[in-house]
Amino acid sequence: MTAAISIPAPKPFPLAQRMSRMKASAVREILKVAERPDVLSFAGGLPAPELFPVEAIAQAHAEVFAEEGRAALQYSTTEGYGPLREWICAHLARQGQHATTDQVLITNGSQQGIDLVAKVMLDPGDVVVVENPSYLAALQTFSGYEASYAVVGSDDQGMRVDELEGLLRGARKPKLIYLVPNFQNPKGTTLSLERRHALVRFAQRHRILILEDNPYGELRFRGEHLPSLASLDKEGVVVSLGTFSKTLAPGLRIGWAAGPKELVRTLTVVKQSADLHTATVAQRATARLLSRFDYYANLEKLRAVYGERCQSMLTSLEKHMPEGTRWTQPDGGMFLWVELPRGMSADTLFPIALEKRVAFVPGAPFFASEPRTEFMRLNFSNRPPELIEEGMRRLGAVIAAQK
Amino acid sequence: MTAAISIPAPKPFPLAQRMSRMKASAVREILKVAERPDVLSFAGGLPAPELFPVEAIAQAHAEVFAEEGRAALQYSTTEGYGPLREWICAHLARQGQHATTDQVLITNGSQQGIDLVAKVMLDPGDVVVVENPSYLAALQTFSGYEASYAVVGSDDQGMRVDELEGLLRGARKPKLIYLVPNFQNPKGTTLSLERRHALVRFAQRHRILILEDNPYGELRFRGEHLPSLASLDKEGVVVSLGTFSKTLAPGLRIGWAAGPKELVRTLTVVKQSADLHTATVAQRATARLLSRFDYYANLEKLRAVYGERCQSMLTSLEKHMPEGTRWTQPDGGMFLWVELPRGMSADTLFPIALEKRVAFVPGAPFFASEPRTEFMRLNFSNRPPELIEEGMRRLGAVIAAQK
Repeated sequence: MTAAISIPAPKPFPLAQRMSRMKASAVREILKVAERPDVLSFAGGLPAPELFPVEAIAQAHAEVFAEEGRAALQYSTTEGYGPLREWICAHLARQGQHATTDQVLITNGSQQGIDLVAKVMLDPGDVVVVENPSYLAALQTFSGYEASYAVVGSDDQGMRVDELEGLLRGARKPKLIYLVPNFQNPKGTTLSLERRHALVRFAQRHRILILEDNPYGELRFRGEHLPSLASLDKEGVVVSLGTFSKTLAPGLRIGWAAGPKELVRTLTVVKQSADLHTATVAQRATARLLSRFDYYANLEKLRAVYGERCQSMLTSLEKHMPEGTRWTQPDGGMFLWVELPRGMSADTLFPIALEKRVAFVPGAPFFASEPRTEFMRLNFSNRPPELIEEGMRRLGAVIAAQK
Repeated sequence: MTAAISIPAPKPFPLAQRMSRMKASAVREILKVAERPDVLSFAGGLPAPELFPVEAIAQAHAEVFAEEGRAALQYSTTEGYGPLREWICAHLARQGQHATTDQVLITNGSQQGIDLVAKVMLDPGDVVVVENPSYLAALQTFSGYEASYAVVGSDDQGMRVDELEGLLRGARKPKLIYLVPNFQNPKGTTLSLERRHALVRFAQRHRILILEDNPYGELRFRGEHLPSLASLDKEGVVVSLGTFSKTLAPGLRIGWAAGPKELVRTLTVVKQSADLHTATVAQRATARLLSRFDYYANLEKLRAVYGERCQSMLTSLEKHMPEGTRWTQPDGGMFLWVELPRGMSADTLFPIALEKRVAFVPGAPFFASEPRTEFMRLNFSNRPPELIEEGMRRLGAVIAAQK
C-alpha cells in the first residue's frame, strides 16, 4: 500500500537555464546495462575492490569510534580535519609541491573539487579550455555552469599545448584550463615534461587558472614519475585535485583541492554552502589509517597489479583485434582508448557487443564538441588477466564481424 | 622547511559574478571565537554529542566492513543505497508522506539538498520566498545562485502565509518558497496547521515549488506533531529535505531529498556532477544501524533531554533577563530567539558578552533584507541545564549592564 505513488506526475516546473545543458548522461545508462552480471564489462571506471585495504580501514574506523567517537560524529569545519590536511601536505611535498594546510581543502572526492572550482570561476559563456577528448564528468560539471569550450587536440604526449596561443585570438579569454595530465580519462595518455613546462609558462604569462585533475598520477606502473603542474608553478596559477578514491577506496569519498591560499579560502566558502563539510567520520578514519598504514607500499602493490592487467589487455588486443584497430599504450592509470577500423561506430557496436556479453564505453560523449564515434574507452583495472583476455577475445570477434 | 609558503600571494583571478554575493560568513568567524574553551557558547548549532549512539554506529560500521567491505568501499550509484532509501520511505510513510524509492535521493546532509534544489531551479534574479528571519546557510546558498528574495514576515505561528498573495503583484513570479516549518532556525517557531494547509494550497494554485527543510521536525518535545507540507500535498509541489544529523549524528553527513519523481531525477543528475555520490561506507553503515537500532526509542531520549534543556533555558531567561527582553517558546528543535530591550544591538553586545565568557549568534545575518540588530539566537541542545543556567546568568548581567 505504502509503495503506491501517491504523488501524480506533476506539470514540470520551469527549471534554471543551466538544466537545458545537464541531461542525464547516456553513459550512465550504458553503465547500468553494462553491469549486468552476465556481461564482461570494461565500461566502468572502477578500481579493483580486491585491493582495497578493507581490514586496515575497518580497524581505523573502530579506533576512531572507540577513542574519539563523539568528535568524529559531530559537525566539523568546512576546511577539513587538520591532521588529514597535514598528511596531504607532506604527501604533496614528496612530489615537490609545497602547500601549507590552509592551501588544502578536503572535498567529497575530486569530483567535488571540479564543481567548486567551476562554481567559483565560471559565469555563463565563460571559456574553459579542454582536451579533445576529455573527462566526461568534468564536461558535465562545466556545462552545468553554462561554460563554453575552447577545445585543443591531444596526441600521445597529451594536450596539444602548442595550440593554446591560437585560442587567445578567440573573442573571449579563457577563464580556466582543465586537464588530467597523468593517464588521462579516457585516453590513458600522459602530458610530456616539455609540455608541462610550456603549459605552466602559458598560464603564468596570460594569468589563466589551470585545474590539474590528478586522480591517477600515483598509479604509474611504467616509466618515470613526471612533476605535477602545481610543482612547476611558483606563481599560484594551478589548483590541483587529488583523491584517495583510486589509492585507498572510492567509497570513503575523500579528495582534496590544493592551490593558492586565497582561492582555497574562496572554495571553502562555496563548499560551506554546498554541504557544510565532508563527513567527519571518514576524514578522521582516513587520517588515522594514514598515520601508520604503509600507503606507499600499498601503492606499489596497486601498480604491480594494474601494470599486469594493462599488459594483459595490450597483449590481448594485439592478439584479437582485427587489422585497422589501434589503441593507446598507457604508463599508468585505469583506461586505454581504442580507435576502431575506418568507418566503424562504437555506438553501433555497443548493443552488438552487449549481445556477445562484453561492454565498453563508446567514446562520443568525451568530446566537448563535434563528437566522434570511432573510439571506445576500455577499463583494465577491474578484471583479472584471464577475464581481460576473454573479454578482448569477445570484443575482437564483434569488431571483426563488423568489418 | 616544507612548511614555507612557496606559492606567493597571487594576483586575484577574475571570479564568477556570483562570488560577489558569497562572502565568508561573519557567523563563521563568530563561531570560531565562540568555541574558545573558556567561553560558555550558545552560538553553535550543535546537537548533544553525549547522546550520539556511538557504540551502535561503531558496531554497524564493523559489520559493514566484515560482511560487505568491498562493496562498501567501492563507487556506488548517485541515487544512494537502496535499503537506506527504503528505510526513509517507510519513515516518511509513518508521517503520512508517501514516496517510492525513486522519489528519494541521498544527500550529504540536508544542506546539499538546498544546494541541489537551488541549482536546478534558479537563474540569476529568480525570486525565492523566504521568512524574515530565515536559515542563514540557505540564504548563502540561494545567493550563490544569484537569487533575489521576496521576504515575508514571521510570527509565533511561523511564516506569514497571508502575505504570499501580495508577492504575486511583484514583477517576477517566485520560483521557490523556502522554509523550515518545524522549530525554525533561528526562531524556534513552528508553522501552524492552518497555515500549512493555506501554504500548500497557494503553491498548488500558482504552481510554485515549496522547499520544505525539516531537520528538526522529529525533535518535538511539547505539543502535537503537525503534518508535513509534503504529506498535505497530492500535486507534487513540495520537495522535502530530511537528515540524520540531528537524530543520529551530523558527522555521518547523511540526509535526503524527497519529492516528485521527475524532479528527484533531475536533482540526481545535478548531484552526479557535484560529487558523484554520497559516501558508500556511511550509507551502508547507517542502513545497517537502522535495520535493528530502535531509532524511535532513541528519538524519545533526545526529546526528553532537549525538552529539559529548553525548559532550563526558558526558566533561566525568566530569572536573569532584565525587563524588556523577550524570547520565543519553542516546542522542539535546538534554538530560541531573543529580542533585546529597545535600542540594544546584539552586534554591540557580542564582544562584551565574550569578555564575560558567554556567546550567542547575533541575529542580523538571518535577515534576507534589512538586517535587524535587536535579536540573538540561542542554542539549547548542546549544554546541560546547570551550564545553561550559568550562561543565562552571565548573559542577563551583560544585557542588564547595557540598559
